Amino acid sequence: MKQKEIRSDIAWATPKQVVIHGLDLCEDIVGKLDFGQMAFLQIFGRMPEQNELRMFNAMMVILVEHGITPSSLATRMTYCGAPESVQAAVAAGLLGLGSVFVGSLDNAARLLQESLPEGNDADLDISALASEIVASYRSRKEIIPGIGHPFHKPIDPRTPALFKVARETGFDGPYIRLMEALGREAERQANRALPVNVTGAMAAVASEMGISWRICRGLAVAARSVGLVGHILEEMRQPMAETLYLRIEHEAGAHLRPADQS
Amino acid sequence: MKQKEIRSDIAWATPKQVVIHGLDLCEDIVGKLDFGQMAFLQIFGRMPEQNELRMFNAMMVILVEHGITPSSLATRMTYCGAPESVQAAVAAGLLGLGSVFVGSLDNAARLLQESLPEGNDADLDISALASEIVASYRSRKEIIPGIGHPFHKPIDPRTPALFKVARETGFDGPYIRLMEALGREAERQANRALPVNVTGAMAAVASEMGISWRICRGLAVAARSVGLVGHILEEMRQPMAETLYLRIEHEAGAHLRPADQS
Amino acid sequence: MKQKEIRSDIAWATPKQVVIHGLDLCEDIVGKLDFGQMAFLQIFGRMPEQNELRMFNAMMVILVEHGITPSSLATRMTYCGAPESVQAAVAAGLLGLGSVFVGSLDNAARLLQESLPEGNDADLDISALASEIVASYRSRKEIIPGIGHPFHKPIDPRTPALFKVARETGFDGPYIRLMEALGREAERQANRALPVNVTGAMAAVASEMGISWRICRGLAVAARSVGLVGHILEEMRQPMAETLYLRIEHEAGAHLRPADQS
Amino acid sequence: MKQKEIRSDIAWATPKQVVIHGLDLCEDIVGKLDFGQMAFLQIFGRMPEQNELRMFNAMMVILVEHGITPSSLATRMTYCGAPESVQAAVAAGLLGLGSVFVGSLDNAARLLQESLPEGNDADLDISALASEIVASYRSRKEIIPGIGHPFHKPIDPRTPALFKVARETGFDGPYIRLMEALGREAERQANRALPVNVTGAMAAVASEMGISWRICRGLAVAARSVGLVGHILEEMRQPMAETLYLRIEHEAGAHLRPADQS
Repeated sequence: MKQKEIRSDIAWATPKQVVIHGLDLCEDIVGKLDFGQMAFLQIFGRMPEQNELRMFNAMMVILVEHGITPSSLATRMTYCGAPESVQAAVAAGLLGLGSVFVGSLDNAARLLQESLPEGNDADLDISALASEIVASYRSRKEIIPGIGHPFHKPIDPRTPALFKVARETGFDGPYIRLMEALGREAERQANRALPVNVTGAMAAVASEMGISWRICRGLAVAARSVGLVGHILEEMRQPMAETLYLRIEHEAGAHLRPADQS
Repeated sequence: MKQKEIRSDIAWATPKQVVIHGLDLCEDIVGKLDFGQMAFLQIFGRMPEQNELRMFNAMMVILVEHGITPSSLATRMTYCGAPESVQAAVAAGLLGLGSVFVGSLDNAARLLQESLPEGNDADLDISALASEIVASYRSRKEIIPGIGHPFHKPIDPRTPALFKVARETGFDGPYIRLMEALGREAERQANRALPVNVTGAMAAVASEMGISWRICRGLAVAARSVGLVGHILEEMRQPMAETLYLRIEHEAGAHLRPADQS
Repeated sequence: MKQKEIRSDIAWATPKQVVIHGLDLCEDIVGKLDFGQMAFLQIFGRMPEQNELRMFNAMMVILVEHGITPSSLATRMTYCGAPESVQAAVAAGLLGLGSVFVGSLDNAARLLQESLPEGNDADLDISALASEIVASYRSRKEIIPGIGHPFHKPIDPRTPALFKVARETGFDGPYIRLMEALGREAERQANRALPVNVTGAMAAVASEMGISWRICRGLAVAARSVGLVGHILEEMRQPMAETLYLRIEHEAGAHLRPADQS
Repeated sequence: MKQKEIRSDIAWATPKQVVIHGLDLCEDIVGKLDFGQMAFLQIFGRMPEQNELRMFNAMMVILVEHGITPSSLATRMTYCGAPESVQAAVAAGLLGLGSVFVGSLDNAARLLQESLPEGNDADLDISALASEIVASYRSRKEIIPGIGHPFHKPIDPRTPALFKVARETGFDGPYIRLMEALGREAERQANRALPVNVTGAMAAVASEMGISWRICRGLAVAARSVGLVGHILEEMRQPMAETLYLRIEHEAGAHLRPADQS
């Protein structure tokens, strides 16, 4: 069989040296770079400028912790059964970061990146483009990704916080303008509050930073894994998983059990 | 059924506000904290001092990327079959961070923390304690966790890099002294090079920072999830998983297939 | 907060009794039902007729073992790092059963079930319907799910094996006729061998049995988990994961390492 | 680098043929073997005798469904977030099958297999051995795996059901005698009801069948994956995950939220 070549350009090591994206781990990274710089290096394959780093950090910190969610509950349930496998508890929590909760991030980024493939087109009429996109989604009765939030309304407070950093770091370009225009246009056409939510804001910022929509979910996953470790720590100190499952088992099966057993 | 109470102290939200470990996400975190500070906050429940942050960052960056490993290969194999589920690819890579590759971190931290439960005891004879521990492991023919490395020898270059940061940040306390003494003592009793490896060094530093051995694996998992996103990005650009599995399938089954089919 | 009710109708237990889908585990199931009957009971919520059971078993056995695949390699890589967590090794192998390898099963079942929502319509012109579907996929340059195979050609031998059981058990209805017509029509329009592959055959049989396309992947996942346990057993006896990752690490990084270190 | 050989003996394929453990998939398996036989074949690498098959099926069916557990809740939570990744929902549920819920199966099997390495020793005094083992666990204040159950007491009804099949199939050998003796001896020494639980009974039967304790958890994982598909199906029809997480989020954070927001 003809052998196709394989290669990886991320890292190499000798007994005395470890090199990651061209930097010597022991000389250039440990004690020199912080966790945000290292994450940037691993994602972009190069060191960030100061403004890039601030923008990247703002995105990452917003993704770490979302409280009690299906994801953190899956982590706690798994830890309850397999406390010796902390890695499995984190993994279980990551597995639900799919189409319902994080998918709108990918989808919004894809919408932006496919609508503005060039990135920066000075002559473009952003408002007209937004109007067209919103009308198209509405005609297909599809939800516009990145728009509207069931709880954080009338505005999602994370969106202005993120866009403020984008302005301060020079990342307030056409993707953010398009995202904001989509929000305005959606509100106008639906005649109700439909602000840009946090995933729409993240998608716009990621697009400004040149991050492909295909990997946006990866950033969310990496940041959330930090958050899930925090939930495991709390589950160690003040567990809720066992109490919860016994309660749920009791309630869910109440109609099936003989009356004298309930 | 009597209802046991459940509670979580990590985060809460109203429509206008998200609060994490007492900090307002939009006012105090986004644009203010970097990813390392946020990870520290999530793990410790408080903001770090400057020296703590530097030490913590040094630990986290060292755990991000380890090249082509069973873990990154599991991620790439999973991405090859389910490219739409980036979260599943990251999770698959985390699942192998168990007893063989990361377990020595927990085990070394446990050994240190159980050997020095008080943390700081000025009168303690560290050398005598190390001698006793090494002799005990040797009599049971058990491997001392955190000692020796099959590839990075005679010394693991990450250990002095990490201990240098520990000295510069004031974290060079009794756990590091005990770890170093274990290395010296193991070399003396076995009469061959048995230096402190990176997991031993990490375990000592984590112990100095007051991180329980029970959650050390969690830090490794969180950091590695960042690294695995980098492997997914590379697999997107220059895939190796399909080539590999076809090769392996061909080779592993060669002895079974009829000769004219090989 | 108003409490929405939750309920589960699958199982209930008292200290003396366990009841699953209305059957007493100790009286009616253990020693009475085999694994295939139990799987049918769990999926359909009722006991199978003899012909249903034979058809169901035929589907399940075909899904168990597919040799060295990205999925079984992810399991082996994970076992190599976490041999104490067999559950994690199985889970890692399942995670890649996504759009590339198993997704065509769901997609083919969805195509069939949405094309023939009534299931059985005597007046329907299956050939005309197939011709229209194939033309529509071709005009969008999309692959028709369940049709064609890169290795098993000109025919996938599993398809006639499965359809033979369908004829013998009375499950050779309109979904199978449509699937076969899609294969013929695809071959005609593309003018090359495009037979119904195993996922197309499975999709047709599942549709005949009344299994929603939404859960077809679940059957594949359950069956494959049995297969992955077999790979873990073999990896215990004659491991390949460590050899493989060292080889791949060596080859993938050869271009990066200094010449005297390769 | 010298290349170590790799090989797999499970399966091979040509375009026209798939062979699994020496059987032709299309000729000998599909339509001929049921799911239980196929699982036996995959685990043992050979076809079962009739009595073996009945015993094996009894073990497998008992492991499929355990109602609302941390495991099925992790599956439902994951499905709620990623309904497009059924494989991830199953995997998430498997990940908690660790030391707390399934570990006692491995541990009990290990205890039996290490206590009776020869399997069948006619001269052995089982009672004396059991007495010694129980005393040893009690002196270390360790729980004897496979003994006692918090809910199914004074006896676990699954144990006599399984042992009845063992008697009927000729698998009632020394491991079952030792397990029963351990239960009696534990009750005597502790002076309270400590019957053999289902994991103890499974461990004894698996040992009689020659299944290594190292893979017992794998059987549980494979069987449970079938059960988890049933929970996904129910979650599709009558979801509980969203209701649950909203409830839990509300309750767990009640003490943190401003009074006017609760």
